[in-house]
Amino acid sequence: MIVPIELKQPPLRHYDITIDSLPELHYDRKVAVVSNPTVAGLHRARLEERLRAPEIEWIEVPDGEEYKTMETVLGILDRLFAAQFDRQSLLIAFGGGVIGDMTGFAASIYQRGIGFVQVPTTLLSQVDASVGGKTGVNNRWGKNLIGSFYQPEAVFIDPAFLRTLPPREYAAGLAEVIKMAVMFDREFFDFLESRDLRDEEAVTRMIARSVSLKAEVVNQDEKEKGIRAVLNYGHTFGHVVENETGYSRYLHGEAVAIGMVMANELAVDLGLLSREEAERIEALLKRYDLPVRYPIADVDAFYEHFFLDKKSAHGRIKFILPGGSIGTHVIRDDIDEARVKRVLARFGAAG
Amino acid sequence: MIVPIELKQPPLRHYDITIDSLPELHYDRKVAVVSNPTVAGLHRARLEERLRAPEIEWIEVPDGEEYKTMETVLGILDRLFAAQFDRQSLLIAFGGGVIGDMTGFAASIYQRGIGFVQVPTTLLSQVDASVGGKTGVNNRWGKNLIGSFYQPEAVFIDPAFLRTLPPREYAAGLAEVIKMAVMFDREFFDFLESRDLRDEEAVTRMIARSVSLKAEVVNQDEKEKGIRAVLNYGHTFGHVVENETGYSRYLHGEAVAIGMVMANELAVDLGLLSREEAERIEALLKRYDLPVRYPIADVDAFYEHFFLDKKSAHGRIKFILPGGSIGTHVIRDDIDEARVKRVLARFGAAG
Repeated sequence: MIVPIELKQPPLRHYDITIDSLPELHYDRKVAVVSNPTVAGLHRARLEERLRAPEIEWIEVPDGEEYKTMETVLGILDRLFAAQFDRQSLLIAFGGGVIGDMTGFAASIYQRGIGFVQVPTTLLSQVDASVGGKTGVNNRWGKNLIGSFYQPEAVFIDPAFLRTLPPREYAAGLAEVIKMAVMFDREFFDFLESRDLRDEEAVTRMIARSVSLKAEVVNQDEKEKGIRAVLNYGHTFGHVVENETGYSRYLHGEAVAIGMVMANELAVDLGLLSREEAERIEALLKRYDLPVRYPIADVDAFYEHFFLDKKSAHGRIKFILPGGSIGTHVIRDDIDEARVKRVLARFGAAG
Repeated sequence: MIVPIELKQPPLRHYDITIDSLPELHYDRKVAVVSNPTVAGLHRARLEERLRAPEIEWIEVPDGEEYKTMETVLGILDRLFAAQFDRQSLLIAFGGGVIGDMTGFAASIYQRGIGFVQVPTTLLSQVDASVGGKTGVNNRWGKNLIGSFYQPEAVFIDPAFLRTLPPREYAAGLAEVIKMAVMFDREFFDFLESRDLRDEEAVTRMIARSVSLKAEVVNQDEKEKGIRAVLNYGHTFGHVVENETGYSRYLHGEAVAIGMVMANELAVDLGLLSREEAERIEALLKRYDLPVRYPIADVDAFYEHFFLDKKSAHGRIKFILPGGSIGTHVIRDDIDEARVKRVLARFGAAG
């Protein structure tokens, strides 16, 4: 006998990303704001001014990628249990990508899932992490290896939060913006090249374009079965760099900048990108003091690390590369190990 | 500026539950079977005979509800990372409800979600846990408080596995079957009363009916916003009993049996169920040696425990009760604290 299961309730599949001054947020349910001491120190008053709810719990976790762990998430859940949060309660992620990823993950597994809202305060999280519903934590095997796909109820992006962002973190966010341009939009790349990306009007336009590009991709392919993989340009290499350096030497966006340069080098080797365009991309990264070189100590070990990446389906490494020029992309899983290692060797300890 | 997110890919929303002798299971991806030493000892050879995959990993976790913890799930994930499982890999839950809940949860958070298949080997998991996509683990705050809604790719129910099930566990499964009949289907209750529920032909019919009833409910209301809550008849009380006794004295189904009797007592008090029908239900439970009494040491503490239940929205306790007679149901969240405590007092230490 066969009993068919055909779930008739579609899950919540749409919500808005608002890019504007933070609006009034009024909720009639218990709310917990998850943040860290740095963000809370700078902006807690601003959020409290806008937020109304019958009960507001502030949960602060330590600041830094090294605390993006299951342990921290379990600590957040424990605070929610202690405060008797129920299935109607709401979490607000108030901080950068680390806060967003952990808060979303916590929301997805607290009592089998409660609502959450993103209020990203860094450039990286505004243009990238807050869009698309990826949540997760790192572990000893790599980055974001435990987590879920879980969409927020809403995202509020207020560029004013960026005024207090350290320049190094700001630049790390720019790396992801440049990534979007290189993969999808040559005109956008020209815009980025032609403007001072610290100017507030340019910044707002840049965020809006980045978010729109990412939203288009995510709308088509939430679970990364196809085109969403293109967002991982620079990440395949970058994740290994982060892993080898214990997630402490580079910010995520910095590792992505290095990863893009590595991917470009491979693309040039394959004839998919001209040396000149590779240099344009590298020059734009360098203009904002992003790192573009990483000395690979052991090419074989570096290569082996690729296989822990979630994108390496069936033991094949998926490389995301410019597809002929800036503004285009290609996904390749057929690249020779020898070729990849030869390109990696150019980044050797002496490189 | 507002960027709308409208995800266009619906997630996988249908799959089949097959009630029959275990078919051949051929997969072209890495497979990990999650089981425990008890089930593996009895049935590993039978599953291995049917299962073909390029790589099969056996993962055994300790047997028992007390191991249904985040720690055990993280141990499963660690084995998958060590074996370099990727996003295309598959988990098979091979065991009872504890194995199913933990395997489903592990599948839902490994690399943001991989596929899983249920092969339930206990009556409880065949009629209940394997249908509906609830996953999760217990913690010090209560049962199933951390988890997700995550549907399997397929469920294979083979009644032959029940031949080796200890009578006490078998009876615990019957409690959930009786629950379904009391809530939804008077004729099915008559059938259960009239047959020997250890007879194999009756068992297969009983499983099929139970699964169909549950599937109907889940199809309408996966996330338990409405009618699915009715499946918690007996559970609101039962969870407190399990929690107070440290999840060790009673099997889950036994606690549910006690919980149904408590719920019935409240229903009789409210005039929603006749004393006679309450006794019919109690008699059927007793016929299979299910416990029907639990001495409540502290009525106030017992009542307080309700509020940790996921079903207690906004601090109101949702009671699921027979709605007038066997085969009907009602959800009530307006019952006087004093009335509930008076009824609970009848189960006092001397009761």
